[in-house]
Amino acid sequence: MSVKPTKHTYAEAGVNIESADHVKKFIAKLARTTYTPDVLSGVGLFGGLYEFKGYNKPVLVSSTDGVGTKLKLAAALNRYDSIGFDIVNHCVNDILTCGARPLFFLDYIAMGHLVPEQVEAIVSGVAQACSDAGCALIGGETAEMPGVYSGKDFDLVGFIVGVVERDKILNGKKIGPGDSIIGLPSSGLHTNGFSLVRKIFGVSKVELKRHYPELGRTLGEALVEPHRCYLTELESLLPLIKGLAHITGGGLPGNVPRVLPPGLSVVFDSFAWTVPPLFRLIQKRGNIEMSEMYKVFNMGIGMAVICAAENVEKLTGALPQAKVIGRVVQQTGKDRVIIK
Amino acid sequence: MSVKPTKHTYAEAGVNIESADHVKKFIAKLARTTYTPDVLSGVGLFGGLYEFKGYNKPVLVSSTDGVGTKLKLAAALNRYDSIGFDIVNHCVNDILTCGARPLFFLDYIAMGHLVPEQVEAIVSGVAQACSDAGCALIGGETAEMPGVYSGKDFDLVGFIVGVVERDKILNGKKIGPGDSIIGLPSSGLHTNGFSLVRKIFGVSKVELKRHYPELGRTLGEALVEPHRCYLTELESLLPLIKGLAHITGGGLPGNVPRVLPPGLSVVFDSFAWTVPPLFRLIQKRGNIEMSEMYKVFNMGIGMAVICAAENVEKLTGALPQAKVIGRVVQQTGKDRVIIK
Repeated sequence: MSVKPTKHTYAEAGVNIESADHVKKFIAKLARTTYTPDVLSGVGLFGGLYEFKGYNKPVLVSSTDGVGTKLKLAAALNRYDSIGFDIVNHCVNDILTCGARPLFFLDYIAMGHLVPEQVEAIVSGVAQACSDAGCALIGGETAEMPGVYSGKDFDLVGFIVGVVERDKILNGKKIGPGDSIIGLPSSGLHTNGFSLVRKIFGVSKVELKRHYPELGRTLGEALVEPHRCYLTELESLLPLIKGLAHITGGGLPGNVPRVLPPGLSVVFDSFAWTVPPLFRLIQKRGNIEMSEMYKVFNMGIGMAVICAAENVEKLTGALPQAKVIGRVVQQTGKDRVIIK
Repeated sequence: MSVKPTKHTYAEAGVNIESADHVKKFIAKLARTTYTPDVLSGVGLFGGLYEFKGYNKPVLVSSTDGVGTKLKLAAALNRYDSIGFDIVNHCVNDILTCGARPLFFLDYIAMGHLVPEQVEAIVSGVAQACSDAGCALIGGETAEMPGVYSGKDFDLVGFIVGVVERDKILNGKKIGPGDSIIGLPSSGLHTNGFSLVRKIFGVSKVELKRHYPELGRTLGEALVEPHRCYLTELESLLPLIKGLAHITGGGLPGNVPRVLPPGLSVVFDSFAWTVPPLFRLIQKRGNIEMSEMYKVFNMGIGMAVICAAENVEKLTGALPQAKVIGRVVQQTGKDRVIIK
């Protein structure tokens, strides 16, 4: 009996074992390009191994996320590499809010039937984004689940582990009234609001390939623009920062309060930044109330940085695209977020 | 504007925010029951925090997996807690093969529309299995993806991080000719072979609720039996073990070679253990060739333990259910696995 080293593959499921082997080798090769000297994994082990050294009082920070229904747009446009960037950058940003830098990443891709080109494109994006963030892609799973996923449907999940020294954990505890909120621009919708966007525009090729002068490109191109990673620009500035909020589902009102100590509110000045044309296009076409827009979309702000007023100049000096977008105040009513 | 702290929930997706909040609180409460003193996470942070101390040369071992189409059976039988055990135990066993004990776990659950009872049942199983393994459930994601998952379809993914001292890593390198293979019984199909089982039996209530005398219960009950965890029984015996193979997709022939150094083969004596009635039932009903059965199913062996011949007695003495099922030999032909 010869050996079949792949998982999830048996003839009855209609799976081509040669394809699966090819994909497996392709992924292993890509993953090796992301390895840092701390990775001990060889091929074929049941777990990824990462040697952990060089910290005094390390705290591991981990997070998991998907890319939501941005998947459907990727499938409609046959653009799979970009969601590889999306999933990694989303996870890197999430743990960055605790002050952590990434150590390693694992991905999970599930589809009805393995489409090698699709998996390889996704993992190419994942591996490139991991390399960019200095994060090793040390494991993953590609699952074929006929009967759960149909047609072009699939799912992509990311898991990240990072580290921060205990005395450097960013938890917002020092935030107080008078602190400033600096907004860093998003690159587009990032990974939130796509179910609503699909409801408004649909996913027909005609609609997605339509060129909009205000976007300077097609709607589809603007929508699949990858989630931006804030690690490189923020890492060296963390000592100046009291709190970070990654603006994902829930928008500014849903995410900024997550780092606020009790008894504090934030006031945003919506005139302080220009909401990008993509959001205005969605708002107009969907006839969506502005308050709803702020809850569903990032509205052009991908990361909110909270800092003492005296550090604003240093931070905005180091972050040319950043703008002061609000301030922290004592909470008076029940609302913790006021958008003016 | 009031604050909506949940992610993935906006009215346009047809989501009930109150349900989502309720589920979120329920999960947070359950997760806290699994916390070890090293967990620093509070509610609402963007990442789970785990203080890492007490090791000399620690190596982090991580793995991700799903439960495959066992999900479909869980849905057909409305039994969701058991797949919570499945996903955790699968992951715990995977990293145990490197000699690692688990530190923390994160889960990802995706469905078309949030069904609170379903998510709560899954997470109840996840939390209980985590507690049993001394593993903290420090994070997770519940995603609603209308248009990707339809009807009762959903997906469940687990992500685990464990640790092993560098000089205690189990990697099979010391395995040599003459070593013995000890098999530990599985509790059923674990999490592999379900697409084939569904093809043979279908998922109709009538078929799943049929009682089989040889199973002593219904087919459905036998099929959803949770994946067994081998941590407790094997942890203290690791110094006696040269290699561990978790028998998942690919069966004995697909998984045992993953821990074998080059130039070695294994010979299994298929008369050494009794293949449980469930596998015989599947084989008969599906008219499946025996060689195929061994490649798709675990055939009653959930974990293969490779050890020096002189340690067999100590190990089988400490593991009353264990049986010697094979031996390691020099590789002569191209086959690395021979089942006699």
